[in-house]
Amino acid sequence: MSVLVVGSVALDSVETPFGRRDEVLGGSAVYFSASASFFTGVQVVGVVGRDFPEDHLDFLRSRGIGLDGLVRVPGRTFRWKGEYGFDLNQARTLDTQLNVFETFAPDLSPALRKLPVLFLGNIDPDLQWRVLGQMEHPSLVAADTMNFWITGKNGSLRRTLSKVDVLLVNDGEARMLAGEHNIVKAARAILALGPRRLVVKRGEYGALLFDADRVFTAPAFPLPALFDPTGAGDSFAGGFMGYLARAGTVDSRIFRQATIVGSVMASFAVEDFSIDRMRTLSMPEIASRYREFQQLVHFDDLPAALAEGTISIPAAG
Amino acid sequence: MSVLVVGSVALDSVETPFGRRDEVLGGSAVYFSASASFFTGVQVVGVVGRDFPEDHLDFLRSRGIGLDGLVRVPGRTFRWKGEYGFDLNQARTLDTQLNVFETFAPDLSPALRKLPVLFLGNIDPDLQWRVLGQMEHPSLVAADTMNFWITGKNGSLRRTLSKVDVLLVNDGEARMLAGEHNIVKAARAILALGPRRLVVKRGEYGALLFDADRVFTAPAFPLPALFDPTGAGDSFAGGFMGYLARAGTVDSRIFRQATIVGSVMASFAVEDFSIDRMRTLSMPEIASRYREFQQLVHFDDLPAALAEGTISIPAAG
Repeated sequence: MSVLVVGSVALDSVETPFGRRDEVLGGSAVYFSASASFFTGVQVVGVVGRDFPEDHLDFLRSRGIGLDGLVRVPGRTFRWKGEYGFDLNQARTLDTQLNVFETFAPDLSPALRKLPVLFLGNIDPDLQWRVLGQMEHPSLVAADTMNFWITGKNGSLRRTLSKVDVLLVNDGEARMLAGEHNIVKAARAILALGPRRLVVKRGEYGALLFDADRVFTAPAFPLPALFDPTGAGDSFAGGFMGYLARAGTVDSRIFRQATIVGSVMASFAVEDFSIDRMRTLSMPEIASRYREFQQLVHFDDLPAALAEGTISIPAAG
Repeated sequence: MSVLVVGSVALDSVETPFGRRDEVLGGSAVYFSASASFFTGVQVVGVVGRDFPEDHLDFLRSRGIGLDGLVRVPGRTFRWKGEYGFDLNQARTLDTQLNVFETFAPDLSPALRKLPVLFLGNIDPDLQWRVLGQMEHPSLVAADTMNFWITGKNGSLRRTLSKVDVLLVNDGEARMLAGEHNIVKAARAILALGPRRLVVKRGEYGALLFDADRVFTAPAFPLPALFDPTGAGDSFAGGFMGYLARAGTVDSRIFRQATIVGSVMASFAVEDFSIDRMRTLSMPEIASRYREFQQLVHFDDLPAALAEGTISIPAAG
């Protein structure tokens, strides 16, 4: 099944302790679709300006990504500028220029409205609602959001969440949305707003997947060299949704695998600037890192005597 | 095999958003030994004052914990007073009174010197060294430390670390000790100081176990109600070392199980104030939570077509 993603297509300027890049390919829909394209077909809904390099579109096309819903309009492309310190968990935004993104109001073609899987990137929840309303009968809808919308458009966000199957947010956003510090209680409160599942992204601490009665914990891959965390969350979402779309049926078993696939894709995304790691990444590399995640978390059963609680401990010698 | 622990025995006064307790049983050696006593014999080396309630000693004895190395001297017992906000990850210390702990200089009896497993709690690294020097031929030595010693007694700490098999610290301490923010690189630097294994405790984010060439990631148990984080790290260490001592032989498989057992014991410790949860805890409860940890991290293999990298993805529909 193909995935429709709506989100930003951007030119990013980024500085980290390990280097600097100016006006490179970025945006949530770009990171998402590059990552998802390893698993399923993807269609991007977004907007770019006249200045957007055709090379970038060629790269997306080379990954089989459909651009029927990406419109080019007069004006400049959305730009984001940020930097990271040695604590790579948090970006400091230096400049945001919405440009053509400011008046973005997607109208989907009849073909795009029929797609079965939808990812609503981190955009105005009113726009998310508009796109949702245009879809004919999506079988799986997931969304991202951020603090800016949680505080600024809370009512609109709740309306969107009431129609969403899966919400993906980071832990600070989950706490803010729920108004609750304990992450288990926060998850319960968010699931009560509509989503059947919640993914809490925690950067270098991995991710949590909550459903009505279970929790799954996914580690982050312990990388000795992490160059640029930009797009890690969207790369996670792309791997996660791409895997779900490919699997077709979605049960708890598939959602757990998808959470690891998302973690795998995020771990590759941060190994280079922009989407550059996705240019060389191969399916065998993805499968190999998935097996490394299995090794990361593997531990054996307790010995029977302990598991059955039948041991007695001698007093200290 | 029995474990010898050297550390603080204290009277703690703690306030969290969920309640307050004054002058309750605390201290690193107490949390450690209460936790370890579920798995093996434990001997405590420490000091208390004349004011230390005999009831507390009775509780430790009731758990089979040996107190031959716990001396009672004139003066007041070590006291710590702290509070936690809704972010329970970090204590704010309001008052520390070393009292009899200030002149603590352990001299081990011949019997204690023969014990095979040693845990050096978070005390002055010169005292850790003194205890190490008194041991005859321990087969396993682990240690804890903290920022105060990393900055104030770095040379002494490095001397101790050169003779330690396993170091257990939190992530901030690991970064400070190594002078490196990336936790994988920090771990490598710490292993170069002597320890063959490193456990990095990350509070609500779980723990990492590093050895020369592998990493193991253990989640924290997602608790909806966490009452008092005091002693979580020492309870982790007690479960970890108690399990290793019980197993006798220590290989990577056993160390991974021990890391989960430590996480299990920490998850119980924070469910109540002081060591109160340890008063009622049972072996079947421990085994049951260990199985819950297995469920927390379990995910299936990738489908063969993905694992072998033989799939081809159709273009977007």
